[in-house]
Amino acid sequence: MINEVYENMLNAKNIIRVLSEFATARGQEIGYDNVFDYSLGNPSVPAPQAFTDEMVRLLREEDPMALHGYSPTLGNPEFKQLIAESLNRRFGMNYTAGHIFPTTGAAGAIAHAVRAVTKPGDTVLTFAPYFPEYNPYITGADLTLSVVPADREQFQINFDAFASMLDDTVAAVLINTPNNPSGVVYSEETLTRLAAMLTDASKRFGRTIFLLSDEPYREIVFDGKEAPYVSKFYDHTLSCYSFSKALSLPGERIGYVAVNPACEKAERIVPMCGQISRGLGHNCPPSIIQIAVGHTCDLTSDLSVYETNRNLLYDKLVSLGYSVVKPGGTFYILPKAMEEDSIAFCEKAKKYDLILVPADGFGAPGFFRMAYCIDTDKVRRSLDALERFTREEYGTC
Amino acid sequence: MINEVYENMLNAKNIIRVLSEFATARGQEIGYDNVFDYSLGNPSVPAPQAFTDEMVRLLREEDPMALHGYSPTLGNPEFKQLIAESLNRRFGMNYTAGHIFPTTGAAGAIAHAVRAVTKPGDTVLTFAPYFPEYNPYITGADLTLSVVPADREQFQINFDAFASMLDDTVAAVLINTPNNPSGVVYSEETLTRLAAMLTDASKRFGRTIFLLSDEPYREIVFDGKEAPYVSKFYDHTLSCYSFSKALSLPGERIGYVAVNPACEKAERIVPMCGQISRGLGHNCPPSIIQIAVGHTCDLTSDLSVYETNRNLLYDKLVSLGYSVVKPGGTFYILPKAMEEDSIAFCEKAKKYDLILVPADGFGAPGFFRMAYCIDTDKVRRSLDALERFTREEYGTC
Repeated sequence: MINEVYENMLNAKNIIRVLSEFATARGQEIGYDNVFDYSLGNPSVPAPQAFTDEMVRLLREEDPMALHGYSPTLGNPEFKQLIAESLNRRFGMNYTAGHIFPTTGAAGAIAHAVRAVTKPGDTVLTFAPYFPEYNPYITGADLTLSVVPADREQFQINFDAFASMLDDTVAAVLINTPNNPSGVVYSEETLTRLAAMLTDASKRFGRTIFLLSDEPYREIVFDGKEAPYVSKFYDHTLSCYSFSKALSLPGERIGYVAVNPACEKAERIVPMCGQISRGLGHNCPPSIIQIAVGHTCDLTSDLSVYETNRNLLYDKLVSLGYSVVKPGGTFYILPKAMEEDSIAFCEKAKKYDLILVPADGFGAPGFFRMAYCIDTDKVRRSLDALERFTREEYGTC
Repeated sequence: MINEVYENMLNAKNIIRVLSEFATARGQEIGYDNVFDYSLGNPSVPAPQAFTDEMVRLLREEDPMALHGYSPTLGNPEFKQLIAESLNRRFGMNYTAGHIFPTTGAAGAIAHAVRAVTKPGDTVLTFAPYFPEYNPYITGADLTLSVVPADREQFQINFDAFASMLDDTVAAVLINTPNNPSGVVYSEETLTRLAAMLTDASKRFGRTIFLLSDEPYREIVFDGKEAPYVSKFYDHTLSCYSFSKALSLPGERIGYVAVNPACEKAERIVPMCGQISRGLGHNCPPSIIQIAVGHTCDLTSDLSVYETNRNLLYDKLVSLGYSVVKPGGTFYILPKAMEEDSIAFCEKAKKYDLILVPADGFGAPGFFRMAYCIDTDKVRRSLDALERFTREEYGTC
């Protein structure tokens, strides 16, 4: 018999996918160029040419047996070493290759990291607004995901709510900065206070609470700034990274877990990830991609388009009277809808060929997400539609 | 706190790895060329040049956004279509793209397939001799793996033992033909009888028992024969394939689940695999590899070396008085050891720089595995060592 739980999951509607399909269908009517599709968080700039060149070089020059052979269980040693060196150089850490576990993107990284530091039945806390795929990621590991309500003013952390939810069932806290869907970068103050509360609670409950830092947008930060490196603030941190966004390789499924060398039993966690992998059926990300990404791990795609788009949208939204926190990074923005029911709001926007995503599923009802990883030209052309929509439906500005 | 179950798994010794490490260390003393290392099942022939050429062509000609972009949740449509057409053409099946779920190798395929057709607590039966990684694959899905004792004469199926173990807790049966570690190909008679017993038991227990067919060695078959295609014999079959062995791409992690269109709820199983993937953190195999393998899926590496090696070893083993079933495929052979304790037997062989793996972990105590995916020249040179070892230690021949 087939499994009822997974079969029943088929009935759930994914609103982002529904909206994306609507955008595609509408595009077939009026030309996709005329659909202002802000639904999907797919990078809109290509991988750097250096990555392509390195792939071709490997294929042309390397022995195919070595190139396509099995990775060692714990990952390609050169990749692990290059990642460790890069993180040490950039963030002043002291990782060795043994602290790096290559994974199939951030999803794979979280799948391994969360199992390493919890046992079934434990609670994982995350903070709204949050990436809805955390639900299957966490429940799939037989854990409970509890969502701390949002700080609706700044999209940092609602510490009062956090304090009331941080009990002795909590094995780990999962954060995402720069954040999908808000675009907000957690400040040093936020991370310092978070770390202090985790340290205090760990002492109080007699167990180390781990911090899982999901950071695929780490390099997409605006205004010449850098995102504070989470693991610097709290020893018991596992950083979960993906090259999907900054290197524009979402389909190639490459990322890693980086285990803070000062965390509890740091030297055991990567080998444990190898054991976890056997049960999950992963067995390392693709070999050639590990090698090519290792050799280009300090590069990024040309990410400037996202800042340009952020500026255009933020300024327009403010001028139209929207309440909106200015994103410090990513390619998302999360304005407050012009009515309480953000689902109704986004439904009305469709009449103007504006595809906006209600943020209810992100734990932020009343807000909507725009994924502005699209051509700047389309962003510019969308501003007029946004203005007409807002004026005609809500009479502001 | 870190997870105790995974931490304790670190204490278990993997005998194949221990032997492989011994071979490497010994190779540093006397030159690896002089170590007759039959420990690892790693392909010894390169991927076909056509695969390399196709990868380079894709990198040179395709839009990197499309090439490296996210696969749709259920896989690259072109890959799915090409696989379906290839299987239909070769095996007279009637798959559509919707019956194919791309995975990260056979490990990923089994991880998804087994979860789709069981619920936690169910039993999965497999037949000795069997691939020991089935243990973490199955227990990692919260299932119990029960091993039907071997047919020690032919390494087909011990049907008497199977009949006594096929009770109403059994949700699925997992087979591997051509088989690791025996090299034996299940005959049409074996598969016909297996299917009849599964049909009968499904009726008796009022639940469909699924057949999971792990077939990474499907194309490595000798004497001009083909392996019977398992899914032709039983409707409720999920075929789990990997391109690791026949296309020599073990590190690139590419395979698939093929759902028999006549199986129970066939049209739901691939979408369910997509749901399962969210919890496991997979999200499709690498995009460029899906595309390149789709375009070369009817090719194989030059596999003739494995048959050459099989012949050399089989003839020598027989001439030395070993009791051994002639492998019909793969690159493994599973002779009976010259003493009951195959661990002691393999330990003695090390003195002759012969690295043989005791098959206790494969559910076949008293036998030993030789993985002859090595250079034919080394196989030839090993024959003398095999003869000296056998004569000096056991006085036969």
